[in-house]
Amino acid sequence: MAEPQFIGVDIGGTNIRAARFRPNSHFPEHKIKTLTLASGGLDIVLERMEAAVRDAAGIHFDDIAAIGIAAPGPIDPRSGTILNAPNLSGWTDLPLQRLMEERLGRRVYLGNDANVAALGEWKFGAGRGHNDVLYLTISTGIGAGLIAGGRMLVGASGLAAEVGHMLAVPDGPMCGCGLRGHLEAVASGTAIGRETRARLEAGQGVGSLLRGMSGGDLTRVTAELVGAAAQAGDEFATQQITEAGTHIGRTVASLLHVLNPSIVVFGGGVSLLGEVILEPIRAATRANTMSVAYWRNCPMVLAALGDDAGLVGAGALAMESVRTVAQFVAGA
Amino acid sequence: MAEPQFIGVDIGGTNIRAARFRPNSHFPEHKIKTLTLASGGLDIVLERMEAAVRDAAGIHFDDIAAIGIAAPGPIDPRSGTILNAPNLSGWTDLPLQRLMEERLGRRVYLGNDANVAALGEWKFGAGRGHNDVLYLTISTGIGAGLIAGGRMLVGASGLAAEVGHMLAVPDGPMCGCGLRGHLEAVASGTAIGRETRARLEAGQGVGSLLRGMSGGDLTRVTAELVGAAAQAGDEFATQQITEAGTHIGRTVASLLHVLNPSIVVFGGGVSLLGEVILEPIRAATRANTMSVAYWRNCPMVLAALGDDAGLVGAGALAMESVRTVAQFVAGA
Repeated sequence: MAEPQFIGVDIGGTNIRAARFRPNSHFPEHKIKTLTLASGGLDIVLERMEAAVRDAAGIHFDDIAAIGIAAPGPIDPRSGTILNAPNLSGWTDLPLQRLMEERLGRRVYLGNDANVAALGEWKFGAGRGHNDVLYLTISTGIGAGLIAGGRMLVGASGLAAEVGHMLAVPDGPMCGCGLRGHLEAVASGTAIGRETRARLEAGQGVGSLLRGMSGGDLTRVTAELVGAAAQAGDEFATQQITEAGTHIGRTVASLLHVLNPSIVVFGGGVSLLGEVILEPIRAATRANTMSVAYWRNCPMVLAALGDDAGLVGAGALAMESVRTVAQFVAGA
Repeated sequence: MAEPQFIGVDIGGTNIRAARFRPNSHFPEHKIKTLTLASGGLDIVLERMEAAVRDAAGIHFDDIAAIGIAAPGPIDPRSGTILNAPNLSGWTDLPLQRLMEERLGRRVYLGNDANVAALGEWKFGAGRGHNDVLYLTISTGIGAGLIAGGRMLVGASGLAAEVGHMLAVPDGPMCGCGLRGHLEAVASGTAIGRETRARLEAGQGVGSLLRGMSGGDLTRVTAELVGAAAQAGDEFATQQITEAGTHIGRTVASLLHVLNPSIVVFGGGVSLLGEVILEPIRAATRANTMSVAYWRNCPMVLAALGDDAGLVGAGALAMESVRTVAQFVAGA
């Protein structure tokens, strides 16, 4: 029999990405990117996912041992169900694992996209060799994946690692989830853009580069633009990023007390700003932990896999799941 | 060979407690309580611990398979070292496991007291049958123990589960650890007493029962007295307990998002106030979680083992450690 192959799929609101991997490798042998077209309805999306998997597999389809899927929103990984995906036409209680297994005739494993990216970074990226990893993704929202004692921490019903909804500022700004003061509501890319625009509109940041960079149209002030201005040395913009980084660092400090990881890995678009946000994150983390023992041997670093973390993680999910099943069967 | 026996030891600033257990049982066959006399110095305490273990073992000493010790303060469970114990004459980097093994000639395992109490509640108490348990102890301080996926979560260097040092109120009151706004600084028994005294001194709670109950001596207003007044229906006292419960509930909500347990268990003296504190904890937890899925199937209950949790947990630590070692050897 030929060497078994694995497919990773990363499904987002805009794109479906798929790749084929050889065992224990994170280099895609073949990579596919296609539009999700979520507005077309469920059947269209399932059809496009199936086609992406078959394209990524190519002539190796018969050798596919398993397929891993990274999907947004809360997921029950045990039943392979998407509980709620606002970015995917509001799918609820969707048994995506079963539906794809029926279409493909192969084992399918489903995971939350941040958890799966954490798995990728742990197995093949910045977290390699660590048994206790805190992975945070800072982009439109704030998500996470947790490795504890050499295993993914998913919780009793797969809902763990939602650090974006930890309380950061009691009675603070409204979060996308409808509650106040969550970390995501004060430190995500969305929050940075919203807060900066509000301050500019209120007359703050008089000499800021952002007024020129936005061409006077403040609706164009996004986290990306604020980050670019901060990197160019703009004091007002730097202050906005520093505030967000401080909120994140305080929450990281709380998480170090709870989880005591040996590395913290930051992914997501906002983290790509680099030191301008990492430095305030590190400073606030250190200032808010009760002992240096929590961070002395715990580097805080950027993710290594970039945009591919979800895709590589989905491939790793397939590989890990097959290994776990094999071990379970062997031990039974 | 006779049935193996296990000893649990719970060492605190005031008392050393020890008990003998039969395998898989949490009923102490024989129980010892003696003063710690920490001020007498390390050798005195070690001698008293040894004597307590030998007394608890009695004629069964030859059958003792292992001894578990629950000790306060941050601990490295892998090396069996107490890193720092302010309540035990400020012991630092004390290799208690090795010192007791030398004295007793038996395997000794060491754990943080809150972690060990959580182990007891998980194996024999309110958390029995659950794979994901959040155990909180609310007393002088606030500690915790976490079970995730059927295993104790201790972190990369044994420092996990310090939920008392999660940030609750940015820039809030000073915590015992020297940082501001930690949960322990706003919701522990110490914090309840301190805050209530300050408010009474500032003239609040004019008609409160506490003024009479304390005999006019406000230094006698402790969390216990505030709890008693609240249970008697005193509005001002109830408000103090409710505030603490609200802070705890908000932190529990953050922890549900991170850990997604299937049960939350409350131990420690303050939790014994019962519904007067549990009700605001539950209300704040529910109000601050983004989905009912986090608490619908997650009861929040009182610990079942009471004062014995540490002792029973220490016995369970000895039993579990022997089992783990046996499995490891069998699998090697």
